[in-house]
Amino acid sequence: MKKVVVGIDIGGTNTAFGIVDIEGNIYGSDKVSTQAYPEVNDFIEELCGRIKNLLDSLPFLYELQGVGIGAPNANYFKGTIEDAANLPWKGIVFFVDKFKKYFSGIPVYMTNDAKAAAMGEMIYGDAKGMKNFIVITLGTGLGSGFVVDGRLMLGHNSIAGELGHVTINPNGRICGCGRRGCLETYASATGIKRTVFKLLADNTDPSEFRDLSFNQLTAEMITGAALNGDSLAVEAYEYTGRVLGSALANAVAVTDPEAIFLFGGLARAGKYILEPTKKYMEQSLMPNFRGKVKILLSAVDGMNAAILGASALVWQHHK
Amino acid sequence: MKKVVVGIDIGGTNTAFGIVDIEGNIYGSDKVSTQAYPEVNDFIEELCGRIKNLLDSLPFLYELQGVGIGAPNANYFKGTIEDAANLPWKGIVFFVDKFKKYFSGIPVYMTNDAKAAAMGEMIYGDAKGMKNFIVITLGTGLGSGFVVDGRLMLGHNSIAGELGHVTINPNGRICGCGRRGCLETYASATGIKRTVFKLLADNTDPSEFRDLSFNQLTAEMITGAALNGDSLAVEAYEYTGRVLGSALANAVAVTDPEAIFLFGGLARAGKYILEPTKKYMEQSLMPNFRGKVKILLSAVDGMNAAILGASALVWQHHK
Repeated sequence: MKKVVVGIDIGGTNTAFGIVDIEGNIYGSDKVSTQAYPEVNDFIEELCGRIKNLLDSLPFLYELQGVGIGAPNANYFKGTIEDAANLPWKGIVFFVDKFKKYFSGIPVYMTNDAKAAAMGEMIYGDAKGMKNFIVITLGTGLGSGFVVDGRLMLGHNSIAGELGHVTINPNGRICGCGRRGCLETYASATGIKRTVFKLLADNTDPSEFRDLSFNQLTAEMITGAALNGDSLAVEAYEYTGRVLGSALANAVAVTDPEAIFLFGGLARAGKYILEPTKKYMEQSLMPNFRGKVKILLSAVDGMNAAILGASALVWQHHK
Repeated sequence: MKKVVVGIDIGGTNTAFGIVDIEGNIYGSDKVSTQAYPEVNDFIEELCGRIKNLLDSLPFLYELQGVGIGAPNANYFKGTIEDAANLPWKGIVFFVDKFKKYFSGIPVYMTNDAKAAAMGEMIYGDAKGMKNFIVITLGTGLGSGFVVDGRLMLGHNSIAGELGHVTINPNGRICGCGRRGCLETYASATGIKRTVFKLLADNTDPSEFRDLSFNQLTAEMITGAALNGDSLAVEAYEYTGRVLGSALANAVAVTDPEAIFLFGGLARAGKYILEPTKKYMEQSLMPNFRGKVKILLSAVDGMNAAILGASALVWQHHK
């Protein structure tokens, strides 16, 4: 019997899931609209029904080892989703308890997307065999998952890894969290848009971005322009890497990782994000850490990364 | 038979050691001059001889569970002391291997003083039962020991916890590590001396410190003056707490601890260091961490803290 797990990625619009083996092979995947279910019980009923259908359709005998769920504002210890701004369900939702009614006896683990990405890198990606590393997710915001001595660092309240809200500059950019100068106001898809607008304000160079509004501009456009050698886009990535690299130097001093993996939207800029981040991190590092920490692009990143990351939460415990 | 361990604190001048039980009772202690032994083998021979004498003098039957050593620049994984500026032995010293020749079959653990202080707090102090906490040692420099999910965070190279070298301000004070703006240039015994001199430069208020040279001034004097209500000394502690509190807010965002313990020289200022640190940390915290993290004075701090911390390294494994 083949051992499989279910990986579920709960997003604001859709919830994707798939059946995964220890090698990271995905045997079928499907999705459910998150937005279509204002009542969480209805959502879970539909989701679990669809998962069971998918399991039933497997062309081989299987042994379900567990279910891993990635969700915003997930509390690993309590199995709750708490005050998630982008989900239809308000307050504290006892998601795992409700979910387990449909899968009794099966272990269910839930954490946020950045911690799931770290587990994905450890089980399926280039962090295989590493005991101490960090995964940085550069999406709309900046998330991070720290692995310490082979285990996910959760913290006392299950909210460790908020590197996106480390203060870079107390007089810096206003953040959605209500403060100023958080790392994610610089190093994220939104952050690099803000940087492009700062550069458009600071200089008079012609740029294709002068014809776009803030709301029209996307990080993908900036990445595309950088890959085409556009100087303003390259400069925006250089600035992003400078801020990110300096912040990572501090994270290294505290946690002494073997490697840092960049994951998500901005990581698709490849060397344009990797090189400045590495250069400025090395410059900012305390001497005894220099040359010791690899900065790498995630090997799991891509279409199914979120499903894989969620599924890895189970393999971490049940290899 | 009583289970005991040996705790050893290797300092630049003297090396202190004692025999300790799980309650933190010390059954005799002694010390050896570190400086008197330019050859490490001679030092270890003398040290181990003295430890055996102390063990032989115990008025009860004992079972030696292990030896814990706190030393500057100690590598936990390799059992080495590496390029310790304040010790007579240069380069990489395979201290634990040499030491074990005198105590064959006995587990020997070695780490630096801040990590040992964290273990001491967990085994004997107010971190008993806590799984996630930080100990900050405010001595000549600033050290830190992070406990994550009940275990000491060592990192990939055994050099995690260098919070003293997190960059607070890239244009800030010059640090002994060769960079600028490291936390310990502000928050340490040396840091607060620098702060007093900055305040003496910035204003014209009379102060008892205007009659002292930089080399004459000590952190103890500043602490004494603060406890007597001297306004400049209180202001120096306020400034120290502001810098420390802001830096701790970032450490909290990454590691989500239940509590932070202040240990060492500056901690003796009590509320003068505790209150500003707490106030500015709360102000700087991301909203979802506010009100959740205790800042406390170490319960182990005092004359035998270093011996207790070192001994705790053994109990962590052999309770």
